Amino acid sequence: MKNTAILLIDCPDRKGLVAQVSGLLYSFGANIIHADQHRDHEASLFFMRVEWALEGFDVNAFSASFGALASNLVMNWRLEVSSQTPRIAIFVSHYLHCLNDLLYRAHSGELACAIPVVISNHANGRPMAEFYSVAFHEFAVTKETKDECERRQLDLLAENSIDLIVLARYMQVLSPQFVSKYPSRIINVHHSFLPAFVGAKPYHQAFQRGVKLIGATSHYVSEVLDDGPIIEQDVMRVSHRDELEDLIEKGRDLERVVLSRAVRWHLDHRVLGYGNKTVVFD
Amino acid sequence: MKNTAILLIDCPDRKGLVAQVSGLLYSFGANIIHADQHRDHEASLFFMRVEWALEGFDVNAFSASFGALASNLVMNWRLEVSSQTPRIAIFVSHYLHCLNDLLYRAHSGELACAIPVVISNHANGRPMAEFYSVAFHEFAVTKETKDECERRQLDLLAENSIDLIVLARYMQVLSPQFVSKYPSRIINVHHSFLPAFVGAKPYHQAFQRGVKLIGATSHYVSEVLDDGPIIEQDVMRVSHRDELEDLIEKGRDLERVVLSRAVRWHLDHRVLGYGNKTVVFD
Amino acid sequence: MKNTAILLIDCPDRKGLVAQVSGLLYSFGANIIHADQHRDHEASLFFMRVEWALEGFDVNAFSASFGALASNLVMNWRLEVSSQTPRIAIFVSHYLHCLNDLLYRAHSGELACAIPVVISNHANGRPMAEFYSVAFHEFAVTKETKDECERRQLDLLAENSIDLIVLARYMQVLSPQFVSKYPSRIINVHHSFLPAFVGAKPYHQAFQRGVKLIGATSHYVSEVLDDGPIIEQDVMRVSHRDELEDLIEKGRDLERVVLSRAVRWHLDHRVLGYGNKTVVFD
Amino acid sequence: MKNTAILLIDCPDRKGLVAQVSGLLYSFGANIIHADQHRDHEASLFFMRVEWALEGFDVNAFSASFGALASNLVMNWRLEVSSQTPRIAIFVSHYLHCLNDLLYRAHSGELACAIPVVISNHANGRPMAEFYSVAFHEFAVTKETKDECERRQLDLLAENSIDLIVLARYMQVLSPQFVSKYPSRIINVHHSFLPAFVGAKPYHQAFQRGVKLIGATSHYVSEVLDDGPIIEQDVMRVSHRDELEDLIEKGRDLERVVLSRAVRWHLDHRVLGYGNKTVVFD
Repeated sequence: MKNTAILLIDCPDRKGLVAQVSGLLYSFGANIIHADQHRDHEASLFFMRVEWALEGFDVNAFSASFGALASNLVMNWRLEVSSQTPRIAIFVSHYLHCLNDLLYRAHSGELACAIPVVISNHANGRPMAEFYSVAFHEFAVTKETKDECERRQLDLLAENSIDLIVLARYMQVLSPQFVSKYPSRIINVHHSFLPAFVGAKPYHQAFQRGVKLIGATSHYVSEVLDDGPIIEQDVMRVSHRDELEDLIEKGRDLERVVLSRAVRWHLDHRVLGYGNKTVVFD
Repeated sequence: MKNTAILLIDCPDRKGLVAQVSGLLYSFGANIIHADQHRDHEASLFFMRVEWALEGFDVNAFSASFGALASNLVMNWRLEVSSQTPRIAIFVSHYLHCLNDLLYRAHSGELACAIPVVISNHANGRPMAEFYSVAFHEFAVTKETKDECERRQLDLLAENSIDLIVLARYMQVLSPQFVSKYPSRIINVHHSFLPAFVGAKPYHQAFQRGVKLIGATSHYVSEVLDDGPIIEQDVMRVSHRDELEDLIEKGRDLERVVLSRAVRWHLDHRVLGYGNKTVVFD
Repeated sequence: MKNTAILLIDCPDRKGLVAQVSGLLYSFGANIIHADQHRDHEASLFFMRVEWALEGFDVNAFSASFGALASNLVMNWRLEVSSQTPRIAIFVSHYLHCLNDLLYRAHSGELACAIPVVISNHANGRPMAEFYSVAFHEFAVTKETKDECERRQLDLLAENSIDLIVLARYMQVLSPQFVSKYPSRIINVHHSFLPAFVGAKPYHQAFQRGVKLIGATSHYVSEVLDDGPIIEQDVMRVSHRDELEDLIEKGRDLERVVLSRAVRWHLDHRVLGYGNKTVVFD
Repeated sequence: MKNTAILLIDCPDRKGLVAQVSGLLYSFGANIIHADQHRDHEASLFFMRVEWALEGFDVNAFSASFGALASNLVMNWRLEVSSQTPRIAIFVSHYLHCLNDLLYRAHSGELACAIPVVISNHANGRPMAEFYSVAFHEFAVTKETKDECERRQLDLLAENSIDLIVLARYMQVLSPQFVSKYPSRIINVHHSFLPAFVGAKPYHQAFQRGVKLIGATSHYVSEVLDDGPIIEQDVMRVSHRDELEDLIEKGRDLERVVLSRAVRWHLDHRVLGYGNKTVVFD
């Protein structure tokens, strides 16, 4: 298992940022494994991700020193430690292909995370969750019960110290209050190439429009439906021979891949959201 | 050069259509090179494309016999002959990359067509057109002169016996009256993955939305802007590192390819439009 | 569930083949749902796939009549019935991602097949197989036991009336005698873009060569290693930032998709192998 | 036009490299526009590319200081200035699609370079070169004249102060002596997905093998045929319906795009070759 620290920074762009950050790391003897920066010249913003080995590194002392520097330079920053396993809650409805994919990846070590809980408004995911020894909670969400359900879901998330919520084809819309509790920490997969085909039944919309490619999009959930910062998108070719069912079937493979990539990158602390965009360090 | 006939059919689906069409062709001794059919089960429509060698084939007698059959079966049909070179007019504005691409392809034989005329609302395409010995006509299109310009353009198209109009990044909107003169015979390239980013400045829209793929779409022009039947689409990956200029530059390669494919398939009589969809026989 | 018949034909090309086949189907009142043909002009071969509704169709009488016609026209043919569920045996080694993918797809109905048995030279796939109620048989394959293992595996396949063997990252090479028992009925996934990187450790080879895309290939197994007819291939972009482990991880997603597509198409009776090529009707 | 400096570094990896380089740049007041690093952990190598604005920057003083630092740290490095337009010679044979593409891109400003000379072993490229006011030199290369031709070509390259040679479907093999004169400064496009289908007639080889994707590769030319460091690759889907001619036609679009990307990246000083690999900073 990796034992590294990851520093993520965003701040107004100015001269000398890399020099000062890398200078401080050097003075602490950091053995840097990956480093990447990005400047958004239009928005005059600077983004940086540095990863270094923790063996023999005094992370507390560094953190204190860096805090002072960051405060001078008006930086948003966080310091993550790869040895701390992130905890995911998966929300799912009737379709289980993304759930199956994520549970298998976590179990096999492809995704470095713990999944203590699956939340669903259907019963059919229970055997799969239990096969992977994951607690399964069913909520009968209706217009009337939605507020109460969300309250209990938030309790569950808190009890399980959840870091990231993954909506793996969860067909309920979360309330703005719920979303605001987990900013940039809820990832959804939408089964279209956003911003085309927002909202319900995107494959039906795509079929009616006669497109020659279908897509899927993973994004952070914001308070506007299907409008949050895009993390990943991919497409697949279709033709006149593909009926609606074929689009849905082909789309499932896109959804699996596009969602699992976004989750992996988030777990690796490689995604920084700003406005309705993301920087995805690779 | 190929010497073949191509029969294109669309009609309500019913039993025995392939048997009757292929039976008639067999009775005339046709040596079939390609044949393909499609059924749209939702719309209950049947589509067919057959191509056969013309050597020693009595196309007039066949055409008469087939006309009678088609009339019984309520078919729309047309019979094309590959030896007859289609004639294209290219409309272009300031950006010449698609014009250059199409002229080169026609000249080198990649596209089996004649291009007798280029029409533009800018002057800068003239040397390139003249290098390929193509007449170049410049029209100063303004709100006031638009009707008059379109009238003169239609005259030019008629004089040149134009079969297909290609809008190769032509930045003027054609009037519905103009479009109605060339149904399913005007191909446009739109620099987005339709239906995302309809209208003006699609790369700017894509950049603002923070998409991870950009696209281009070639389609038949209908009376609603950017809404005609899609012939081809393709996409290219972009990242946070791509600035607006990079999107525009990458997009040009998509535009070239997506437009030239649509033109080639149309010239090969492989595209059948219906409603706002297309069948593209491959 | 679909209730259709599928006729698959390959034979030397000659005039009138479509007319005669579709004429016979019409005379039996077939309601055709899909039909497609292909001519390999270089090899002078003709291929056809027709699918029609079985309701009210006398399949035995048709089969007898067609047999006579096919004999006259020197056709290879087979008649499949969609209501008969194909039976698959999956062979797997230590890596379980393709096994998990196929078992989930079969269970959820994405793949129309039964999977009565999983065969492995490792123990770790047992819980997953048993979760899906599939018998799991472990064989300790060594140089010495290989012949005996294959004999017992063939017995198992026979007892389970297996139609198709899927090698889902099975790291043992099957003997030519074994392969010859299931011609065009063993599908393998090779973790490279064949014919690049044949044999062992293709991701290592790809990493050493510095390629910018990695691939995966599904193919029918023939007696020459990694040389059988290719059914499907796909690729994914990599860069200098990808280390060997990243190639392996990205490759797994390719393997899942490329293998499951090949299996689906085979189950739909859409693949015809000839020489070392395939026709894949879509 | 951009007025920037680009510093390219490769050296053995050690602690503090970024800190020292960025520290020096900061002390000179550099306004950094892009910066990227890469570590090859397997080879223990470090690569860096920094680009900064030259306005008000004392590049000579910096260069002297940096030279001292680089010498201490055993760095290979070069300092490029974006205002100095690189000079390209294009070598071409009978097929002109890549030549046309590159000449158009240079003329329109898509590629920031000068193309003073085209060299060919065929006559047919002359009108196109002359349309773009580029000198065209024809060499009748045979086994007997090859040495003499290469001598005269090298003279031409020297006279024209050529920085980069682009083999745009040039069908002659350059001698090792010729290649050694322009290390990492000759870019070729090979019409296959290397290392599949090395050598002559790759589309024929691909057609015979029955692949489902065809590819193209741009790479630096080394002394071993088709074995130099790969800069870019791309692929396109083909099917059983594609005949050899279709593969060749589809491949041309790949060749254009794959070659022009490699040339652009080289011109932007974004490619670093090492061993038989490349780092392509994006």
